Amino acid sequence: MNKNSSNIMALASNISNKREAVCIFGTGDFGRALGHKLIQSGYPVVFGSRSTQTSSLIPKDAEVLSHAEASQKAAIIIIAIQRQHYNFLTPLAEILRGKVLVDISNNLKINQYPESNAEYLAQLVPGAKVVKAFNTVSAWALQSGTLDASRQVFVCGDDTEAKQMVMDIVRALGLTPLDQGSLLAAQEIENYPLQLFPMWKFPILLSLGLTTFFFFYCLVRDVIYPYVYENKDFSFFIAISIPNRICPILALILLALVYLPGVFAAIIQLYRGTKYCRFPDWLDKWMLCRKQLGLVALAFASLHVLYTLIIPTRSFVRWRISSQTVSQALNNKTEPLNTTNAWLSDSYLALGILGFFLFVLLGITSLPSVSNNVNWREFRFVQSKLGYLTLVLCTAHTLVYGGKWFLSPSSYRWYLPSAYMLSLVVPCIVLVAKFVLIFPCLDKPLTRIRQGWERNPRYSEQSNYVINKSAV
Amino acid sequence: MNKNSSNIMALASNISNKREAVCIFGTGDFGRALGHKLIQSGYPVVFGSRSTQTSSLIPKDAEVLSHAEASQKAAIIIIAIQRQHYNFLTPLAEILRGKVLVDISNNLKINQYPESNAEYLAQLVPGAKVVKAFNTVSAWALQSGTLDASRQVFVCGDDTEAKQMVMDIVRALGLTPLDQGSLLAAQEIENYPLQLFPMWKFPILLSLGLTTFFFFYCLVRDVIYPYVYENKDFSFFIAISIPNRICPILALILLALVYLPGVFAAIIQLYRGTKYCRFPDWLDKWMLCRKQLGLVALAFASLHVLYTLIIPTRSFVRWRISSQTVSQALNNKTEPLNTTNAWLSDSYLALGILGFFLFVLLGITSLPSVSNNVNWREFRFVQSKLGYLTLVLCTAHTLVYGGKWFLSPSSYRWYLPSAYMLSLVVPCIVLVAKFVLIFPCLDKPLTRIRQGWERNPRYSEQSNYVINKSAV
Amino acid sequence: MNKNSSNIMALASNISNKREAVCIFGTGDFGRALGHKLIQSGYPVVFGSRSTQTSSLIPKDAEVLSHAEASQKAAIIIIAIQRQHYNFLTPLAEILRGKVLVDISNNLKINQYPESNAEYLAQLVPGAKVVKAFNTVSAWALQSGTLDASRQVFVCGDDTEAKQMVMDIVRALGLTPLDQGSLLAAQEIENYPLQLFPMWKFPILLSLGLTTFFFFYCLVRDVIYPYVYENKDFSFFIAISIPNRICPILALILLALVYLPGVFAAIIQLYRGTKYCRFPDWLDKWMLCRKQLGLVALAFASLHVLYTLIIPTRSFVRWRISSQTVSQALNNKTEPLNTTNAWLSDSYLALGILGFFLFVLLGITSLPSVSNNVNWREFRFVQSKLGYLTLVLCTAHTLVYGGKWFLSPSSYRWYLPSAYMLSLVVPCIVLVAKFVLIFPCLDKPLTRIRQGWERNPRYSEQSNYVINKSAV
Repeated sequence: MNKNSSNIMALASNISNKREAVCIFGTGDFGRALGHKLIQSGYPVVFGSRSTQTSSLIPKDAEVLSHAEASQKAAIIIIAIQRQHYNFLTPLAEILRGKVLVDISNNLKINQYPESNAEYLAQLVPGAKVVKAFNTVSAWALQSGTLDASRQVFVCGDDTEAKQMVMDIVRALGLTPLDQGSLLAAQEIENYPLQLFPMWKFPILLSLGLTTFFFFYCLVRDVIYPYVYENKDFSFFIAISIPNRICPILALILLALVYLPGVFAAIIQLYRGTKYCRFPDWLDKWMLCRKQLGLVALAFASLHVLYTLIIPTRSFVRWRISSQTVSQALNNKTEPLNTTNAWLSDSYLALGILGFFLFVLLGITSLPSVSNNVNWREFRFVQSKLGYLTLVLCTAHTLVYGGKWFLSPSSYRWYLPSAYMLSLVVPCIVLVAKFVLIFPCLDKPLTRIRQGWERNPRYSEQSNYVINKSAV
Repeated sequence: MNKNSSNIMALASNISNKREAVCIFGTGDFGRALGHKLIQSGYPVVFGSRSTQTSSLIPKDAEVLSHAEASQKAAIIIIAIQRQHYNFLTPLAEILRGKVLVDISNNLKINQYPESNAEYLAQLVPGAKVVKAFNTVSAWALQSGTLDASRQVFVCGDDTEAKQMVMDIVRALGLTPLDQGSLLAAQEIENYPLQLFPMWKFPILLSLGLTTFFFFYCLVRDVIYPYVYENKDFSFFIAISIPNRICPILALILLALVYLPGVFAAIIQLYRGTKYCRFPDWLDKWMLCRKQLGLVALAFASLHVLYTLIIPTRSFVRWRISSQTVSQALNNKTEPLNTTNAWLSDSYLALGILGFFLFVLLGITSLPSVSNNVNWREFRFVQSKLGYLTLVLCTAHTLVYGGKWFLSPSSYRWYLPSAYMLSLVVPCIVLVAKFVLIFPCLDKPLTRIRQGWERNPRYSEQSNYVINKSAV
Repeated sequence: MNKNSSNIMALASNISNKREAVCIFGTGDFGRALGHKLIQSGYPVVFGSRSTQTSSLIPKDAEVLSHAEASQKAAIIIIAIQRQHYNFLTPLAEILRGKVLVDISNNLKINQYPESNAEYLAQLVPGAKVVKAFNTVSAWALQSGTLDASRQVFVCGDDTEAKQMVMDIVRALGLTPLDQGSLLAAQEIENYPLQLFPMWKFPILLSLGLTTFFFFYCLVRDVIYPYVYENKDFSFFIAISIPNRICPILALILLALVYLPGVFAAIIQLYRGTKYCRFPDWLDKWMLCRKQLGLVALAFASLHVLYTLIIPTRSFVRWRISSQTVSQALNNKTEPLNTTNAWLSDSYLALGILGFFLFVLLGITSLPSVSNNVNWREFRFVQSKLGYLTLVLCTAHTLVYGGKWFLSPSSYRWYLPSAYMLSLVVPCIVLVAKFVLIFPCLDKPLTRIRQGWERNPRYSEQSNYVINKSAV
């Protein structure tokens, strides 16, 4: 028994016997939700409020005291008050000396104030240890315990000990703390919940621009031209035919743009002879949104597949096929099978199917839970090798689609080539450049550079420390 | 060197020098699997058993002692015994005083006993600290270390310290502990592994009911009516044609039912003038299964897409098209292109494709690993804005599908309107109500109410604390 | 105030006041990236290097000292040096006594050296506590903080305390440590980043073999036979028609192979009368790659769906249908609707659609983030019940596809039956065996055996401890 009790003592030193009280300033929605959750997880909770009368909305087991009294009951004080009311804390500065103040506030606009709320709080109460946390969690998610939205809690602060205390609370509430460093990170953390897919902005704007261009291009070629010269009304092409031209074009161009920055990076590294040199800013940004570019490309490819598969169901297509058949019957002749046409048609369909299949595979491996379960080599294999194979298949699909009419002058209308021909420019550049870079005379020095070799070591002294981003 | 060794001491106080022994009562499958895993993770393991002879099945490094002896070797005792044998612990009560008893048992039926096994154990051994844990993990998952099934371990208990000790073990085994609060949660935790998709019950039962109704409705209109009046055998419609009518109808109705409770909630809040008032129970439950309703709707939509795309391959469709063409050829006339028909056909197909595309996007963002990587604003944008856009597109798809025959009397058979018209009722109600709620005269007070404003503060005194669930 | 300060003291004992310094030997890419990240997370970092002059590449806040000096500043020393240079540590052995040495090295080939790098390090510096960690993380992932690749860090070591210290650092860097046991696991951990989908090797090789066989089988029957006997050039069948025969065959066979080992396991358990007996090795391995087999089968099924849906768009198919229609018109006859054909055609399409739908559902539930959110009973329900239903539907789809020509002699060419008939062998065996095993006379003893009952207890004494792998 003796030995056993000492065991318990050894373990007990590791954890606090009872959880420390937590004080919450403010009895608004979020303060109450957080208080509820803290009580559930075994923390004694004290609310600090202007009016100390307990409302029915405040959790039963919580005490409500004045700000000064409440703050003396706990080492950690959560400030669940809006930034514009922070100055009421100034008179409390002496009492708050040495306390851990948790800033959970959010703003209404990105970069609303020159300094972050947490830094402003730290200026107001210089003696306290300010930690930024919880601002990314919604009151509703806290209360319902739903896992639908994110459970990540970004934490930052200048005092490691205070940060650790807050992170322990985060963990006890069943959330995942992510240490973001010093209080300088607070601005970024406060902007985070206001962001709306920031990494997607460039790919989506780019594809909107390209979509608009190609829409009018196809409108001119496929609707206006026949209307002017043949007086035919093909305006209904706007619903399916033209989108089905735009989608594959955008899918192919965007997919090529995923691999183009890697080619640029390789050329820059070869030219500079070192990897310890920062890439130009536009290249850095481009590289960081490659995944999003690829997923937008996949979305266009999926739409293209749906539009293509629906073709035989379209009223116009049924009418065209039926009237061709009727005219054959009336002319009393049967066409023989054209094997070349059959080959071309089947090849481009097969290439498209295989390309789309690999594209979907790439999309699946970019799901966070899947990419978490592969090692670095496997991730590179899929995203690089399979990615280039997808690009080759999709480019070949477009080339064979052109078939016999590829580059033929009869396909020009008003000197405008078919739209799909424009889409081939970027992928062909990427594939040719990649093909050239594979040659040993270029591949060998590039590999050595990426392993850290420098042709001309003076560069490294000038540049800051960077990691080679073209590794993928 | 001196400074360094003191560093080690500082760190060492943080962790136990050697891991504490763990005692396991019971040498059944799960006890042994747990023992194996504990030994692997560096814990000394002592088995408590009636017969103290070591079987070949018991891990080599483990000791097997009598219950009394084994329990003295460790502070934590895992009870790997079925509930009906718990009473053998009564004579050991004195020895078990102060120990942490981990109840890992499961029942065969939901709510099999009036109190949970863990609470029963706590009654039998009043001096011990009972913690419920590990019951959701299978012996097979423990042993194989496979990540296929869940790695979450629900933990609950009245003693915070004891719970912490158990959660440390859970973490050391590579599993994720989830603190569920006091021992009162044990009943729920014991029911969890017996549940079979509880949140899916209502959506699946509802869709089964609706499927049955629409199946017979379509059977009467599309198979029995032609058989009675035209003596045609269209019984094979049961395989594809009728399912392809039911699937889009159910997809549309269920999708509308996802957004209907939000409309109800807004109306209730506007009427009451406060958000601090609990919604009726049925509305609460409905709101909690919206995700499941949406996913079932997506399943029906996917089936509809597959059924539609396969249409041109069907033997019946090929026969119909071919016989129409033959009769045209025999009558020696060619139909001109009907541009209105082409517009209608292409529009409803395009609307359907875009609606389905957004629907799949909604489905992907509801994957746990994806929704964990978006912030609250992004999650709301996708689920609310894109969700309503999907509903608008799908409703328009159905309206245009009706086309010229929409509401035309000729489409009635035995006074029954086409089935798709029935499916438009709920979505149209939701869209009209949402449209009305967007008007500033309603939207402004609603926004203020949701920010905490109360028209009539007396309400809040009567009601319990609730969080506004219609936030999404 | 007094009480409060003691609270802080209580909490402070729990965490180190300031984080302990970490020493890194080696200033290569990975050492610097790790140093950066450690400094960001609040650790003081000291580099140990041959040349103590600070390069611009080394993080500003880090000190650079000689190896001997640097190692005295920290309890933990990260060895960011390649294995071939480890012997420079031998003279430092005395200084390194008692230190925690973290081996982060990787090799270029699997099992490159007889013993793992970490074990080699432990031999060179016998007084140190060697821990293997970080080798699965790339410098690029560390620096960019990107979540794209895995955040799992495998940790192993003989000293529990040292391992715990390293795991705390891993957690502080925002990564997930996974304890893999003693230093014996180092070899496996070092091989991990060199692996390229090891679990996928068998399923992919198997499907490549089967694909080759069925390709030539179909080539002979569908291209060479018509060429020889009817002098027709169907070589373009290679693009779509033959792949669309191979894909469903492989999907069906591989799906059946997912369930075959479970049947074998049941038969072996029934025969032996116990579950405490290790299965033959081939069965164990087969069982562990069932998920991968199923996913490869799903890939083939998806390709089959795409190939099938594209059929009406094919030039050859349009020509065939059109020429049939023309010949009907020229012969002045209209075929009546064949209801049996319509039934057969619609049934096999409907069965295929439902089978594929369930198949995709199985695929989605095998996504790590989804399977983490279901309990064991739900996982078994989906993977076992729904899995068998999928197999039944897909087998029925293939049987009905054969239709009237099933087993008819006219479908033989050069004594070769249609390829789809070969694909039915394995699934039929599995389904018949499963059907037999469901009979109570076999199911009851099997259930008892799986609950631990033994017909003949002598077996258990001979065998090692195993968990019943056929539980799923």
